[in-house]
Amino acid sequence: MHSVPDSGKPTIFGVLRPIDWLLLAVPVAFAIRYVPGWNHQTLLFLISGVGIIPLAGWMGRATEHLGERAGPGIGGLLNATFGNAAELIIGLMALSKGLTGVVKASITGSIIGNILLVVGASLLAGGIRYPRQTFNQTAARISSTSLSLAAIGLTIPTIFHWSAAATPAGWSPDSEQKLSLAIAGLLLVTYLLWLLFSLVTHKGLFNGEDDGDPENDAWSIGRSTLILAGATILVAFMSEFLVGSIEAARHALGLSEVFVGVIVVATVGNAAEHSTAVVVALKNKMDLSLGIATGSSIQIALFVTPVLLFASYFFGQPMNLEFSLPEVVAVGVAVAILVQICGDGECNWLEGAQLLSVYLIIAVLFYFLPESTQEPMPNSAPKVLNEAKP
Amino acid sequence: MHSVPDSGKPTIFGVLRPIDWLLLAVPVAFAIRYVPGWNHQTLLFLISGVGIIPLAGWMGRATEHLGERAGPGIGGLLNATFGNAAELIIGLMALSKGLTGVVKASITGSIIGNILLVVGASLLAGGIRYPRQTFNQTAARISSTSLSLAAIGLTIPTIFHWSAAATPAGWSPDSEQKLSLAIAGLLLVTYLLWLLFSLVTHKGLFNGEDDGDPENDAWSIGRSTLILAGATILVAFMSEFLVGSIEAARHALGLSEVFVGVIVVATVGNAAEHSTAVVVALKNKMDLSLGIATGSSIQIALFVTPVLLFASYFFGQPMNLEFSLPEVVAVGVAVAILVQICGDGECNWLEGAQLLSVYLIIAVLFYFLPESTQEPMPNSAPKVLNEAKP
Amino acid sequence: MHSVPDSGKPTIFGVLRPIDWLLLAVPVAFAIRYVPGWNHQTLLFLISGVGIIPLAGWMGRATEHLGERAGPGIGGLLNATFGNAAELIIGLMALSKGLTGVVKASITGSIIGNILLVVGASLLAGGIRYPRQTFNQTAARISSTSLSLAAIGLTIPTIFHWSAAATPAGWSPDSEQKLSLAIAGLLLVTYLLWLLFSLVTHKGLFNGEDDGDPENDAWSIGRSTLILAGATILVAFMSEFLVGSIEAARHALGLSEVFVGVIVVATVGNAAEHSTAVVVALKNKMDLSLGIATGSSIQIALFVTPVLLFASYFFGQPMNLEFSLPEVVAVGVAVAILVQICGDGECNWLEGAQLLSVYLIIAVLFYFLPESTQEPMPNSAPKVLNEAKP
Repeated sequence: MHSVPDSGKPTIFGVLRPIDWLLLAVPVAFAIRYVPGWNHQTLLFLISGVGIIPLAGWMGRATEHLGERAGPGIGGLLNATFGNAAELIIGLMALSKGLTGVVKASITGSIIGNILLVVGASLLAGGIRYPRQTFNQTAARISSTSLSLAAIGLTIPTIFHWSAAATPAGWSPDSEQKLSLAIAGLLLVTYLLWLLFSLVTHKGLFNGEDDGDPENDAWSIGRSTLILAGATILVAFMSEFLVGSIEAARHALGLSEVFVGVIVVATVGNAAEHSTAVVVALKNKMDLSLGIATGSSIQIALFVTPVLLFASYFFGQPMNLEFSLPEVVAVGVAVAILVQICGDGECNWLEGAQLLSVYLIIAVLFYFLPESTQEPMPNSAPKVLNEAKP
Repeated sequence: MHSVPDSGKPTIFGVLRPIDWLLLAVPVAFAIRYVPGWNHQTLLFLISGVGIIPLAGWMGRATEHLGERAGPGIGGLLNATFGNAAELIIGLMALSKGLTGVVKASITGSIIGNILLVVGASLLAGGIRYPRQTFNQTAARISSTSLSLAAIGLTIPTIFHWSAAATPAGWSPDSEQKLSLAIAGLLLVTYLLWLLFSLVTHKGLFNGEDDGDPENDAWSIGRSTLILAGATILVAFMSEFLVGSIEAARHALGLSEVFVGVIVVATVGNAAEHSTAVVVALKNKMDLSLGIATGSSIQIALFVTPVLLFASYFFGQPMNLEFSLPEVVAVGVAVAILVQICGDGECNWLEGAQLLSVYLIIAVLFYFLPESTQEPMPNSAPKVLNEAKP
Repeated sequence: MHSVPDSGKPTIFGVLRPIDWLLLAVPVAFAIRYVPGWNHQTLLFLISGVGIIPLAGWMGRATEHLGERAGPGIGGLLNATFGNAAELIIGLMALSKGLTGVVKASITGSIIGNILLVVGASLLAGGIRYPRQTFNQTAARISSTSLSLAAIGLTIPTIFHWSAAATPAGWSPDSEQKLSLAIAGLLLVTYLLWLLFSLVTHKGLFNGEDDGDPENDAWSIGRSTLILAGATILVAFMSEFLVGSIEAARHALGLSEVFVGVIVVATVGNAAEHSTAVVVALKNKMDLSLGIATGSSIQIALFVTPVLLFASYFFGQPMNLEFSLPEVVAVGVAVAILVQICGDGECNWLEGAQLLSVYLIIAVLFYFLPESTQEPMPNSAPKVLNEAKP
């Protein structure tokens, strides 16, 4: 079970957490959007982003709660499918508006955010309290190998684009789409195998500690279902507000599309996991903490990404899996440094600080990148490697 | 000793294995080639490819058999030199026809095929039978480090080409050839050091289990010598047929030169190791299984590749070690993921499935790559990173 | 304490080491420079380079000696700050002459030289005497992770340049400088955190063996201070001679700027650490040997590099952190193979030979690279990936 109450009280829905004060942003966002004369796009972008943070947390906890009731098999599947529902909803909203560049950037951002920011903060926070923390090396290695595979899958279409675009005779956008579809299919199959492994054949490896007796009555299940449904609807509204105001807001704030996707949107979707992983690390439960962060990355890369790609065909705006050079490098270095840090089954505060430092280096890169590099046009990627000639 | 009978009988040449039924392809290939009116190129390509598979297996077993007779030192050297004789013969035949693109692609394909396909299938097959398999971590690490070194050596000439070709004033094909020769020499020296390490100074690390009493009579040695000679001659014929029909066959099948080299030719040369490594993994002898696959990769990269490069000068068609971007990336990611999986001395079925998934992702990439990217012309590599400008 | 007397005598300054015979080069260099008619640039380049080697050794030993007197905290800081003072002085001299290309190449060369040449020679020398040597896996991993972070930090500005230069509308040299400054700041903060970790919170991890009773009298401290001051002044002169004669010497010797920086200048600055690390490895003190080499790399990457970047503003020749493709690849593969070799806490002679082989492969690459690729002009990096078009 991933959720951990901030207070000492063991009930999940019994108390408001500090983060839940951010729920106040939800009615404010509605007001900004619908009260005549109040429609300020930048404010709407910021407030709706803040509103998603606690809602994503409630969705996650309700899913887990239902998952526990359903038993480890079905429950695990439920968690695995809806655990990143907030990111999925934001992605679908962005796709419906044709913002494939933002969708791809937020995929990149979710992966590196979970690996560098969430794991980094957890290791730093836990490491300040405990000089040396340990975790199950085998589970961490398998997770990081899954992430390596995801990074390879997300790099290959870009490699194809650079190579194929050099031979105009043989190149066609059609073959690019087919390659992206084939790889999305392979990533999804790998995700199903990963579920089979972690929920069935080797489930012992990934068992976090149990948090005591669950509430087993029908009332509790009904309440969780209601909360899940309500939070999902509200997240959908907030996502619509967020995505609808992105263009205006980022021009007003002077931010590029890729920075907004990689840093802002991705952070909003992951903030709930973030706070949980850090709280758990402070309790020296590093297996659980790492499991939340790497599990979320794996789910984004191997499940949410293929689903969004397939969904893009329904919106009539087929997305592919070509990323820009900075995105490919960011995912690659994030996974590589995670592999190093997870390799020995122990961690300390310096490793956390190093992950955060890499995150900041990458954030600075995306901050300074000029806008037009990231145009989601068919021919944009190789330009990345060229230079205007006089 | 690497060969393992499929049946329970311990003699090496006493029984035909299932794979030996493929020997029927050998006379059929001769018929297609020489019976007037039967000369169908695509069929010849396929049938001669099938014929090489069991012949390569017989060559390997005869070499090992002679190696055992000769004692560990000389025997190890014999295995190390002729263990991939089939790949070497195919490569020489292709060089004699000027198909340096196919030769380079089959080097790439042999390396990634052994790492991803053979190790992947072994881990998957073994892992389905045993939940957790273990192997000697030190030996696996040293092998994967050797492969990292090989990957670096095969990447550097491409890096040189991209950098140097940007400065037409300083660039010359001559310096590219010299660089490739120097690196080939360094790879060969590293191979000799690797032999010194694994056969002399640290031979205990790499000892597979012994398979019982060898047949020690002169008759057995003579028989192995005869089998080795016969299989070598037949492989040479089959290779000549295969290479001679590549151009016609791949046009008929709509396959690019690089796909044929990386996927088809490489698979034909490695099929024998493949089946042995899987059979051994099913017997939970993971050290032996990994040793076969990584040993074969090391031999291709550090021994066969330099020998083919030097040999290309005798054919008047000097080859270099520049590869295309997709080939460099494929070798790099294959080695990187092997390093991760071999790092902890244990494996499971999911890791096997992940290696196979990476193989499929790379195969899909090469399948969709348009033809002309892979032209073995001096100026082709940097084009890879460029895009036609209007 | 890093310095180890070659003889059996434990006093540091009591005996001349064999390397100290090279001090004879110092007066010779002065003579070549100042005696009228003797001014031969190539000879001055070579002789002043030779003179720096023993002086750098004396500076290092005097710093350590003072460090021991000052106690572990301040002493560690002293070592951490002045341990690579020779490299820093050479870099400052080169900056004052506007040779930013040489400065950047010598940074690259110091990092790969320490990782590949120094560690490689230590593992080979130690491994020939002892079949299997062990070291503290945790300390080695943390060091190699710091180097991974450094490699990422030094790669990002180059990635930015390739991406941003493709969009002339958004690109400006100004944003490149800001990015380099921001990353230099982050690297320096990471260095301070590394000091905090290795000198304060986890100092037990990095304790080398002590070499017996230090001489504790005031005379000894005064002598060390005098030696440090004298050697620093002489190094500054030698560096000025070396840097002033680089251009003439490399034209006479037919060497490119990048080869001189990566191979020649870097080797001169590191020769003292080199001999100490090998001597220590021969005594089977692998923790100390690896600590010298990786510690020196970390110091160059995370401390000397940012300091040189900030200093370049005082010389009116602002440097950035963009490197050429071969430099980025060289640092990346060097760190990657170190990570692999340090991952298991044991080493052998083959791993040493493999590191040396990678060093030679990279040296050959830089030797054959044509000159103009390495121009330190704003637009040079992307050219690296382009090809002249007719």
